[in-house]
Amino acid sequence: MGPRRHDPAAVAAVAQALTPLAADGLRLLVNPEERRRLSRDAYDYSPVLAARLAAAEAELVVRPVTVEQVKAVAAACAHHHVPITMRGAGTGNYGQAVPLLGGVLLTMTGLQAVRSATTDCFTAEAGCRLVAIDEALAPHGAEQRLLPSTYRTATIGGFVAGGSGGIGSVAWGFLRDPGNVLGMEIITVEPQPRRRQLMGDAAAPLNHAYGTNGIIVAVTLPTAPLRRWRELLVAMPGLEQGLALADQLRTAALPIKELSLYDQQIAAMVRPLQGGVAGIGGCRLIAVVAAEAMETVKETLAHHDARLLLQRPQTAAGSLRELTWNHTTLHARAADPAWTYLQLQLPPEPAAVLQALGRQQGEDLAWHLEVVRSQGEARWAALPLLRWQGADALAAVMEAAQALGCTLFNPHVITVEDGGLGVVDGDQVQAKQAYDPAGLLNPGKLRGWLERGASA
Amino acid sequence: MGPRRHDPAAVAAVAQALTPLAADGLRLLVNPEERRRLSRDAYDYSPVLAARLAAAEAELVVRPVTVEQVKAVAAACAHHHVPITMRGAGTGNYGQAVPLLGGVLLTMTGLQAVRSATTDCFTAEAGCRLVAIDEALAPHGAEQRLLPSTYRTATIGGFVAGGSGGIGSVAWGFLRDPGNVLGMEIITVEPQPRRRQLMGDAAAPLNHAYGTNGIIVAVTLPTAPLRRWRELLVAMPGLEQGLALADQLRTAALPIKELSLYDQQIAAMVRPLQGGVAGIGGCRLIAVVAAEAMETVKETLAHHDARLLLQRPQTAAGSLRELTWNHTTLHARAADPAWTYLQLQLPPEPAAVLQALGRQQGEDLAWHLEVVRSQGEARWAALPLLRWQGADALAAVMEAAQALGCTLFNPHVITVEDGGLGVVDGDQVQAKQAYDPAGLLNPGKLRGWLERGASA
Repeated sequence: MGPRRHDPAAVAAVAQALTPLAADGLRLLVNPEERRRLSRDAYDYSPVLAARLAAAEAELVVRPVTVEQVKAVAAACAHHHVPITMRGAGTGNYGQAVPLLGGVLLTMTGLQAVRSATTDCFTAEAGCRLVAIDEALAPHGAEQRLLPSTYRTATIGGFVAGGSGGIGSVAWGFLRDPGNVLGMEIITVEPQPRRRQLMGDAAAPLNHAYGTNGIIVAVTLPTAPLRRWRELLVAMPGLEQGLALADQLRTAALPIKELSLYDQQIAAMVRPLQGGVAGIGGCRLIAVVAAEAMETVKETLAHHDARLLLQRPQTAAGSLRELTWNHTTLHARAADPAWTYLQLQLPPEPAAVLQALGRQQGEDLAWHLEVVRSQGEARWAALPLLRWQGADALAAVMEAAQALGCTLFNPHVITVEDGGLGVVDGDQVQAKQAYDPAGLLNPGKLRGWLERGASA
Repeated sequence: MGPRRHDPAAVAAVAQALTPLAADGLRLLVNPEERRRLSRDAYDYSPVLAARLAAAEAELVVRPVTVEQVKAVAAACAHHHVPITMRGAGTGNYGQAVPLLGGVLLTMTGLQAVRSATTDCFTAEAGCRLVAIDEALAPHGAEQRLLPSTYRTATIGGFVAGGSGGIGSVAWGFLRDPGNVLGMEIITVEPQPRRRQLMGDAAAPLNHAYGTNGIIVAVTLPTAPLRRWRELLVAMPGLEQGLALADQLRTAALPIKELSLYDQQIAAMVRPLQGGVAGIGGCRLIAVVAAEAMETVKETLAHHDARLLLQRPQTAAGSLRELTWNHTTLHARAADPAWTYLQLQLPPEPAAVLQALGRQQGEDLAWHLEVVRSQGEARWAALPLLRWQGADALAAVMEAAQALGCTLFNPHVITVEDGGLGVVDGDQVQAKQAYDPAGLLNPGKLRGWLERGASA
């Protein structure tokens, strides 16, 4: 049988089985307010998802503090056919951590050991915050390669299971690129759960699978060398100049950790992009570069008539990092909640797309662009802000973008596949068969599993 | 007036002026054998250059040990209109250090202080060997970005003045890419020489100008983070498989310092490429990757049916490094001195070029390919071995390669411009006007200066 939907008796049986572990730190949260709060993530960037997911709620939140306790949760849920939905810090934007069928919400923030940190790689438990991992790596002259803009709150397990890239993607590509995740430790969901070490290729099917096909309890990732990063905020008249400047910077021999562009409308709307200097219009570029690149960067800015509004060492808190990637959307929505967004990869020559969509949408679209490494080549990703005008209008813009040669990563859908390239990944489904044979993990999020069920 | 050609009296006057400095370590070498030896570089890879440059010889070799002594040499030569040709370790392949008009050969190996070494950058005197700079950087967790295969003997001044890239170019591009050279200290050639610090853009015209437009006494370059590099030798059946494997490696998220391919003919001819394993035919790939990339690399090799013949930590001596770049040509010529070579950048899809030229040339051409970063994109450079069949045959192959979309960097010519894109760089000529107004430095090597003279 499959997972039981909203079955209070079954959940009560799970709670009862786990109660003895409370003495060892496991927490069982049944308070309705906490359950409601933890059954959400940051999906409200999407009005589509907000409507669809508002009612979803787990009957029980479980917060283990050891791997053995995770095994106990998996065993109890498997025994009682109760669905388990994994949660890190809840910073996802696609409802990755939302329990569609209720059941147990398994929040991993209690597993926060950095098991090892070296110059080359680290192994951290799923609930480790990324900021804590960088603190552990710094004495070894190392840092994480990829960070979401939610760096200060996000967990590493949540990032690997529900994220894809972010700051650092300009140099290192995305988490799913071979080499960015070296291994995982997982717990299977079975009456007798197994603890498995998946190294290399074996871990790939669980990478960005929303916790649908195995409980990730620890991950091993390679590092990047720690550098003295400096963050810059730059003003220039228009997006075209910004594209040319960014191109010049990325093709030079400069260590770059982040390179993004914000059009006039976003620059005017998101106050920190004004850089504390009044009356400077135009677009903005944010760059994070190594200290030794600063002189070359300044010369490049001078050649492009770009104005350096701000430069400073990058720090954990209060960084320009928190203006980039989906933090841009956060700030825009704080200014006006009518904004939502898209996720695109632009074709190699993006100018035509920017113009065509800009013309079509007028002030209802604002461009936010990020340089990323895709298949080894530099490309522009876009997280354009879109003024919400209903689902049909949204669908029309997405269609127009695709017709112009953009690759869409739709942030208004709940399945792994539809948020990606739309294609079922047989390895993900096979991994679910192996590690979650009863289909209890995050039901409804892996389309390949649902379709397999339908055709069986 | 311009430089005096082979003027024994003028050279004797220079020698006399410098003799008092011998007490402070400056050396004046007049012994014919030493003069002959030091008036050469490794141009004999090119039969064209070997014929053209065989007779060139300086009347006096001067080896200063301080910047003040360099100034004294510049002053004496300027006073007596004696040409000065700069020399590092003489590892260049285009006669960069060959004194066409005789005069003084200024060998910089006596200036070998690493003035500063930090995590971010270093300043080293021109005569520093690259291997010594890496030794000074290692305690700071840093290393040089770019190395010629002559790493153990080459000097940093010679590399910047006469080289272009090499090991590391897969990640960092070439020395002339903005950001790879931060500054230079130079001495002008005038009766009262000036000591100038050229930072950023101001140093660019002296970068890869063969010492024609200023005496470089020190350079400041940015570093790369030191990593635990491992070097690998891999066998696979054919070049096509090698291209696919290399493509897979370079598009993954792996720190790579060197990635090169050698066809069957080279693999059979250059014994160390056999990896100490008898009877393994096919092509070879050399990769230098960070330790944390090894597991991903091994999985990738397995997917491509490639065989790992050898893997080991990279060391200063006895490294696979000394099979790459122009060391390949060196080894081939040791096996059979009839080999010479070309330098090409291949078009983005190189397979057609490889096939077409291979078909045309048969066994008289052997492919040696290097992945490089060019204008921010990964591209294949080629240093194909060519069996020497005379200048006309060589010209025909070069023409055929260009017709197929290759960019030629002709290693059989002596001017800066003809070894590059053939175009006069006005900044180089202006720098010579400013820092060597009498045109005494390395006369005959900067075509833009000669043409300026001709049209004046």
